[in-house]
Amino acid sequence: MPKKILLSGIKPTGRPHIGNFFGAMKQFVDFQDEYESYIFIPDYHALTSVQDREKMASYTLDLAIGLLAIGLDPAKITLFKQSDVPEVTELTWIFNCLTTMPYLMRAHAFKDAEAKNKEINVGVFDYPMLMAADILIQDADIVPVGQDQKQHVEIARDTAEKFNRTFGETFKLPSSFIQPEVSVVPGIDGRKMSKSYNNHIPLFAGDDEVKSLVAKIVTDSKTPDEPKDPATDNVFALHRLFSEDQIEDLTSRYQAGTIGYKESKDILAANIIKFITPLRTKREAIAGDTAHVQAILTEGGKRAREHASCKMADVRQKLGL
Amino acid sequence: MPKKILLSGIKPTGRPHIGNFFGAMKQFVDFQDEYESYIFIPDYHALTSVQDREKMASYTLDLAIGLLAIGLDPAKITLFKQSDVPEVTELTWIFNCLTTMPYLMRAHAFKDAEAKNKEINVGVFDYPMLMAADILIQDADIVPVGQDQKQHVEIARDTAEKFNRTFGETFKLPSSFIQPEVSVVPGIDGRKMSKSYNNHIPLFAGDDEVKSLVAKIVTDSKTPDEPKDPATDNVFALHRLFSEDQIEDLTSRYQAGTIGYKESKDILAANIIKFITPLRTKREAIAGDTAHVQAILTEGGKRAREHASCKMADVRQKLGL
Repeated sequence: MPKKILLSGIKPTGRPHIGNFFGAMKQFVDFQDEYESYIFIPDYHALTSVQDREKMASYTLDLAIGLLAIGLDPAKITLFKQSDVPEVTELTWIFNCLTTMPYLMRAHAFKDAEAKNKEINVGVFDYPMLMAADILIQDADIVPVGQDQKQHVEIARDTAEKFNRTFGETFKLPSSFIQPEVSVVPGIDGRKMSKSYNNHIPLFAGDDEVKSLVAKIVTDSKTPDEPKDPATDNVFALHRLFSEDQIEDLTSRYQAGTIGYKESKDILAANIIKFITPLRTKREAIAGDTAHVQAILTEGGKRAREHASCKMADVRQKLGL
Repeated sequence: MPKKILLSGIKPTGRPHIGNFFGAMKQFVDFQDEYESYIFIPDYHALTSVQDREKMASYTLDLAIGLLAIGLDPAKITLFKQSDVPEVTELTWIFNCLTTMPYLMRAHAFKDAEAKNKEINVGVFDYPMLMAADILIQDADIVPVGQDQKQHVEIARDTAEKFNRTFGETFKLPSSFIQPEVSVVPGIDGRKMSKSYNNHIPLFAGDDEVKSLVAKIVTDSKTPDEPKDPATDNVFALHRLFSEDQIEDLTSRYQAGTIGYKESKDILAANIIKFITPLRTKREAIAGDTAHVQAILTEGGKRAREHASCKMADVRQKLGL
């Protein structure tokens, strides 16, 4: 039986952080044997916020290096830049013509973004159609996403159904996949870790950067000998990811009031550094040969584009273009 | 000095009518010596309303035949289908990211369409960005349009300026061109001739069809011997286009009350038939060799795509994609 197709992307909007790692990147590695995986860097999407040539090029390359450093294997998966498959923008236009304004305006992500800024760009509004095109053009079966992107996969399903109904069976209906335990990684202020909140710990941070960021994690003001609640402490929330071996001991000490936040943070920083160090070493080795990374992206783009072109030939024929 | 570049399109949404002819198609022929002309059939745009393979294919072919029949010369101009230049959809996405929602929502055509139907599709809303891409990707200097499309050319100018400001000088600023006397051709009910009002006379109509449509032109109920006002009569409005030689005589007879609407309509029908007959004959000859028409479109598409690809290479480089 052929493997099911998995597709997922991670936006190049700066250095990847540990929220990106546990929320998305790690899954790409975990899944690369089980699925035929298409992992892409959505630079067209990033264009809604990154409008600077140098930044776009460096964020994209940096992310590709990062993905290879954590163990994505180009022999197993197709790693590519979204803009190497420009066919997705053609399919986006086609989906625009099948989708009503009120339907797209009901998207949560758009409503949230618009609530914050009326001057939001049309790319942010139209993004679910681009995402639907990304997914459907590759015949993806499964799309691992964060909770906040779940609705976008539903929109992709709806769009596939609408197209199939209007023009005949063409697109597979994709399903989203959300790993419950990784859905949200907390940042140093306790909110979801996110570049836009500036509460993130970079995935390939240096030791001093880790120590300084961990020192800034927001806690209450309990003294070392007061009992503390593991369920509500932001330091403890990160222990769950980085201090698995010690989690029972830390729980007892929190509850008994035999550990202060300073000590807890020192343990956490040491564990994060232990986790990051081999990744950073691998990252540096890969970053030393960017031509090789570019070649991997080019090859992946070629493969992804081939699939997309076939699909679009079918789509265009069905539309009478 | 190289010729200036003219770009214009006419939507394949059914048989072309005499409103299309005087409002747009005729100008393409009039201008083909003076400008380097790109004339295209916007099938991506038509997709906002034509969602049927057979119709899309036949309307497109039919329009190409019509354009050749009225005298467009593929040796002088580039005639192509919009979907043979899929790069315009890529540029549309890019423009989406540079354009705010409130800006695009102020477009008259969108506001009018939305006032009539809240369930309007996203393609209708996003259409000015596609049109901007069509214009700017070919470095057009001049865009002949109807009054109702003037704002869209301004949007294209704005978009070019915004892009140039953000990423460096890339796009020419286009100008619209509106021939004042042809801006509106009246339909048989006196409103602007339009397929959507179903008040149109097809450009290649048969004799009986012309007679029957002219007979239906809405007039007041004045008797033959009452004086009539040439300025307000719908039959007379069409005489201005088809009865130039007789216009003085008809004016006197209208004012003197020596002509009835029946006779006026008979004269008009005869003149329209005289006008259409040679065009229809030419149309039938061209329609007999559709492979040749397809070859002209293919060749035009190749030329237009070459220009567009060069432009997009520059754009992508400037964006850091």
